[in-house]
Amino acid sequence: MGITEQLIKLGGMDVPEEAAAMMRLSLFDWAACGIIGAGEADFAGFRRAQMIEEGPAHVFGGDASGAATAALVNGTLSHALDYDDTHFAHIGHPSVAVLPAVMALAETLDMRLTNAVDAATIGVEASIMVGVWLGRDHYQIGYHQTATAGAFGATLAAARMLDLDKHQTRHALGLCASMASGLKAQFGTMGKPLNAGLAARTGVEAALWAQAGMTAAADGLDGALGFGATHHGEGADVKLPRKDWQISEISHKFHACCHGLHAMLEALSGANVAADRIAALKIRTSPRWMSVCNIAEPKTGLEAKFSYTQTAAMALLGHATGTVGNFTDAITRDKDIRDLRAKIEVMEDPTLSETQSQITLTLDSGEVRRMRHDLLAPMTLEARSDKLRGKVRALLGEDREEALWHAVIGPELDAVTACFAGN
Amino acid sequence: MGITEQLIKLGGMDVPEEAAAMMRLSLFDWAACGIIGAGEADFAGFRRAQMIEEGPAHVFGGDASGAATAALVNGTLSHALDYDDTHFAHIGHPSVAVLPAVMALAETLDMRLTNAVDAATIGVEASIMVGVWLGRDHYQIGYHQTATAGAFGATLAAARMLDLDKHQTRHALGLCASMASGLKAQFGTMGKPLNAGLAARTGVEAALWAQAGMTAAADGLDGALGFGATHHGEGADVKLPRKDWQISEISHKFHACCHGLHAMLEALSGANVAADRIAALKIRTSPRWMSVCNIAEPKTGLEAKFSYTQTAAMALLGHATGTVGNFTDAITRDKDIRDLRAKIEVMEDPTLSETQSQITLTLDSGEVRRMRHDLLAPMTLEARSDKLRGKVRALLGEDREEALWHAVIGPELDAVTACFAGN
Repeated sequence: MGITEQLIKLGGMDVPEEAAAMMRLSLFDWAACGIIGAGEADFAGFRRAQMIEEGPAHVFGGDASGAATAALVNGTLSHALDYDDTHFAHIGHPSVAVLPAVMALAETLDMRLTNAVDAATIGVEASIMVGVWLGRDHYQIGYHQTATAGAFGATLAAARMLDLDKHQTRHALGLCASMASGLKAQFGTMGKPLNAGLAARTGVEAALWAQAGMTAAADGLDGALGFGATHHGEGADVKLPRKDWQISEISHKFHACCHGLHAMLEALSGANVAADRIAALKIRTSPRWMSVCNIAEPKTGLEAKFSYTQTAAMALLGHATGTVGNFTDAITRDKDIRDLRAKIEVMEDPTLSETQSQITLTLDSGEVRRMRHDLLAPMTLEARSDKLRGKVRALLGEDREEALWHAVIGPELDAVTACFAGN
Repeated sequence: MGITEQLIKLGGMDVPEEAAAMMRLSLFDWAACGIIGAGEADFAGFRRAQMIEEGPAHVFGGDASGAATAALVNGTLSHALDYDDTHFAHIGHPSVAVLPAVMALAETLDMRLTNAVDAATIGVEASIMVGVWLGRDHYQIGYHQTATAGAFGATLAAARMLDLDKHQTRHALGLCASMASGLKAQFGTMGKPLNAGLAARTGVEAALWAQAGMTAAADGLDGALGFGATHHGEGADVKLPRKDWQISEISHKFHACCHGLHAMLEALSGANVAADRIAALKIRTSPRWMSVCNIAEPKTGLEAKFSYTQTAAMALLGHATGTVGNFTDAITRDKDIRDLRAKIEVMEDPTLSETQSQITLTLDSGEVRRMRHDLLAPMTLEARSDKLRGKVRALLGEDREEALWHAVIGPELDAVTACFAGN
């Protein structure tokens, strides 16, 4: 069965409770990222330029517009900080493409939160399937999988919400095949978060247009002239989810920096040692990250987010790496940080996957401690909730975290979107 | 100089009078196609689905909306009939991607028609440059050049209209690189005209967003991870226009059928012979068209548009091939047509380019006549105007043709867009 037919089947499946619970945690995390993202001054002009229509769908930072516009703006703002969730097999950020589409459409359709969460779960699972199907070639050649695979996930979620039949869903996916886009060349520019917003809008539009009678290539995704064939897709084998949904392997960021640093920071969190007792620290990581986040002597807050030595030193000296505001230019010049950075060595280890890190810590006393972490190590939903609540508390403060948390575990969609205003 | 830098230069160039005059003819032709396209019942749902905002930019069929929405809808409707202009080196339809963006933005900015026409000329020239740069590989692998190259042309035109500086224009083109899309897989579905509408909207949005402060990859079009490298672009050599602008080689359709049939129909227009005197007719054409528009025994009006034998018979029997309504299912079953079709032979001739056709006509008397035509044969602007006015008269009727004609050769933008209502 081709992937288009698999997706159509997936669109009609029941969602397991565990998968939906994971989705609610991602909704919580995503909304917090969007609320904070709306405060980024760089994006104020873009946000204002979109606010030409009024509608039912709330936009981060206040105001409401039509579903497509809200999806575009919320997708962009929620990815602005790069602090949202990741799925390594998808090679992308699943929530920022799917959730903006689902939430905007859910408000338009006046849906219950439960149904919106189910649709989002389907959408994220679909994104992961398409991401795996497109494979690493697609990513390596230059496509931003968050946006390309994400657009198909958003489309399938929207098609489910609009109750499209099989033929309409096929047309929606076919329309998406002509609209899905986004280049990795944008990394380091505002074009990166925009890619996520465009994917979310594509999902809303492709489904609404199919509902309005637009037709498209039935094999737009996997035909001989389809998206996969034209966009360097591998066409890897994928299967419909049975008991275990791939959404369970989502990684949430608990540190406001590049995801390549997170396994190291998690490993280090067990160190519990005063910085002045450290003689040497060796970090082993997957070769894949060496060209991504190994800036040895960062000079800006942005560079700090891509530096093993800097973030390790920050963590050991008690500067919370989960606090966005701690990544300043000044902290890269801090004397204690610089002294500690000089004791840290980073080396690649091809036996480690990109979710793993190993640390060897040598104390002044000569004592040697070894620590390791794998981001894919099982974490209970409770433990994950606790960590996410801590993250969101740091982002939004206690009161707003409390309100958002109770909204996302509750039944009412409006309670969630009421939290979107302000930043 | 890379193509991005060339495009930025082009954006600031003066437009020669002759090129602008050609653009006005394409504006006339495009508007007529859009007005008629708005009457296509299939697209009514799509059109309605977009009309959620009000704004200054007129939409074919009535109503007005924001510039981006008007560009999307007008681009789609004006390509719905596939009766708009073509540029063979671009491998696409230049006006349907550029003009919807330019006209919608011009209304928003309250510009004079002259300035809008200049911007459109720049935009079309840019589309052709990017189309040539992407090359035939890009088209063959499955990209719809009308949409992909067209989006860059629309972006450059919009950037000029918004008076963006070099840096902003570079960002606009960089944003476009993440948004330009459209698959040939859509041919035969409503997704094909939609591709044109999406390209037009991309132009408006990329320029407005760059103006609003969005940044993007400076080398989004021609960098190592850019649009060309990721989308199978050839990177062919292109030059900035000097005396001769490539817009002068635009072909307008004077027959409501596949462009592959037009050289043959033009050649035949000089035949001036009664059908019952014909013993045999041989059509020679470029091999490229044999798999595109050589349906020997069409059964529907749509198939008739892709048939040498059918359209040749129609022309010889006096059924105007410039009249959309003549392409019916019934006419494929007409006895005289069928009898004449049986006398027509179509053969490929590799010495002919895709704009050329040769005809050998044998009469009952034994007399043999030879005719040929090349769509690129020079045609004066006056001769082209006359032919286009005839086409538009057949589409809109005398009064509305007269009004549209005087509007496009006049100074006022509003006079043109006032013609958009109705169909």
